[in-house]
Amino acid sequence: MTNPPETGRLHGVLAPVVTPFDRRLRPDGERLIHHCRWLLEQGVGLAVFGTTSEANSMSVAEKIALLEMLVAAGLPPTRIMPGTGCCAFPDTVELTRHAVQLGCAGVLMLPPFYYKAVSDEGLFRSYAEVIERVGDSRLRIYLYHIPPVAQVPISLSLIERLLKTYPGTIAGIKDSSGDWQNLSAMLERFQPHGFDVFAGNESFLLAVLRRGGAGCITAIANVTPGALVYLAQHWQQPDAEARQAALNAVRQVFQQFPTIPALKAAIAHYSGDPTWVRVRPPLVELDDAQRNALAQALRSVGFSMHIQAVQ
Amino acid sequence: MTNPPETGRLHGVLAPVVTPFDRRLRPDGERLIHHCRWLLEQGVGLAVFGTTSEANSMSVAEKIALLEMLVAAGLPPTRIMPGTGCCAFPDTVELTRHAVQLGCAGVLMLPPFYYKAVSDEGLFRSYAEVIERVGDSRLRIYLYHIPPVAQVPISLSLIERLLKTYPGTIAGIKDSSGDWQNLSAMLERFQPHGFDVFAGNESFLLAVLRRGGAGCITAIANVTPGALVYLAQHWQQPDAEARQAALNAVRQVFQQFPTIPALKAAIAHYSGDPTWVRVRPPLVELDDAQRNALAQALRSVGFSMHIQAVQ
Repeated sequence: MTNPPETGRLHGVLAPVVTPFDRRLRPDGERLIHHCRWLLEQGVGLAVFGTTSEANSMSVAEKIALLEMLVAAGLPPTRIMPGTGCCAFPDTVELTRHAVQLGCAGVLMLPPFYYKAVSDEGLFRSYAEVIERVGDSRLRIYLYHIPPVAQVPISLSLIERLLKTYPGTIAGIKDSSGDWQNLSAMLERFQPHGFDVFAGNESFLLAVLRRGGAGCITAIANVTPGALVYLAQHWQQPDAEARQAALNAVRQVFQQFPTIPALKAAIAHYSGDPTWVRVRPPLVELDDAQRNALAQALRSVGFSMHIQAVQ
Repeated sequence: MTNPPETGRLHGVLAPVVTPFDRRLRPDGERLIHHCRWLLEQGVGLAVFGTTSEANSMSVAEKIALLEMLVAAGLPPTRIMPGTGCCAFPDTVELTRHAVQLGCAGVLMLPPFYYKAVSDEGLFRSYAEVIERVGDSRLRIYLYHIPPVAQVPISLSLIERLLKTYPGTIAGIKDSSGDWQNLSAMLERFQPHGFDVFAGNESFLLAVLRRGGAGCITAIANVTPGALVYLAQHWQQPDAEARQAALNAVRQVFQQFPTIPALKAAIAHYSGDPTWVRVRPPLVELDDAQRNALAQALRSVGFSMHIQAVQ
């Protein structure tokens, strides 16, 4: 991560870390630790249990067990921002309390996403219920705005109310709306008040850093950590635009495929560890033709990944 | 329920039972048992843990504890169809296995609903994973098609494939699409093959019964159980259209308000038990003005409810 501020807050680039599964589709802790170590070595923070991590396809107990394993393996919790937002607040409270107790830098919190067209009042109460029940001054919440998937947006007025009510706790946002207008409004209104704005994809990385934002939390960081961190650290250099363009070309390749299975297929391909292709339903792994097409398309944009299989 | 067939399968009218919460927003087992008894007395089956039940706002452990309480209180599991579909298959497996072991007549199973635009292949695997892992010949699954909320539809071709692969297990569907074309297609293609089609709202009750369907599973059954069961039992009588119209008028009243809070407000009003108004976030209870407007609108359509508070 770039420019770690005095406060120790997360900045720069974080990866919603893909979750490996074994033959019986159980989470594979050993491979997850290995991948997380590799990401940290490149300077990328660990937003485990995000959308890309298939977090909502895992139970609360599975996520708690995995986080325990990561920390027990020596990965620094100060660089971990687990996703903890579930539909039911008791689940969100349990995951969040556990993350805080382990010393995680923050949590990335989806709104409850089953009911649609809910009011800002209802969403405010959802977050308030969790904050009050966790009741820990160490808690730092990053809101997770991802309307294309959750279908439950986090409005600017909701952010304003949450920030006013819980100024020490509401720490920032991941904006995966893909809407620059929205990102821009948050950068203007909230970033100056200590609310860290992360773009939800790296195509906005340069633009966000130029506007004083915190960085990005992006699926693609699972496969291009080095290039992303370099750009985040050298965004004021003359070649920054060219580096952003090269990253955008890689992004366009992954967007031609179902993204999560494609990221796992890329890791399987470059590490030589075929087990990485597995996903939990309702996702479906790429078929052979798709995997070949992906590998070819990645070569055509000069992509490569230096990653080793678990021994 | 009307016309219980020889097979003992659920037919007629079921209520997705509203869940009462105590002051700390914990599920209130005593009040739930009381409400379930009242519904059963009117001939309504118990589709506990549906959308109207705020089931996705409760944890797996909370739902397991509530179901244990209902059965321990002597409510017949043969008239209970709990909702068990979660985003993560381990959760769905746990809830489903528990329901089967308690002897429940069936389970109502949402598809995993976090990821959107997933393939039929992915949804087939989701259901298959649960069926294989539960591995119990007593399992009867009612698919839950509710695209306005889950945003993940269950297509006719997915039903066809599931029925062909698991003919003894795939028992039917609750169709909450509100789309008569879809209901009609399922009644034609699948009902004759032992796949029980329930409308997801009672405005289609008469039409579904005339087409040989199984009945309806509807939120409104929480407050109009008697009238619904009467219609389901006497749908061939000359006054059936008039009874359907009267039910439609009640429906229109509830649709002017957020439906789940309004149903709870009605139960609170007619039972004299104000605790019933509580909902879990992200839902918000009706305010005083809304409650007064609801009571007045219900009176204007001649609605009444004979229900008593827990003593």
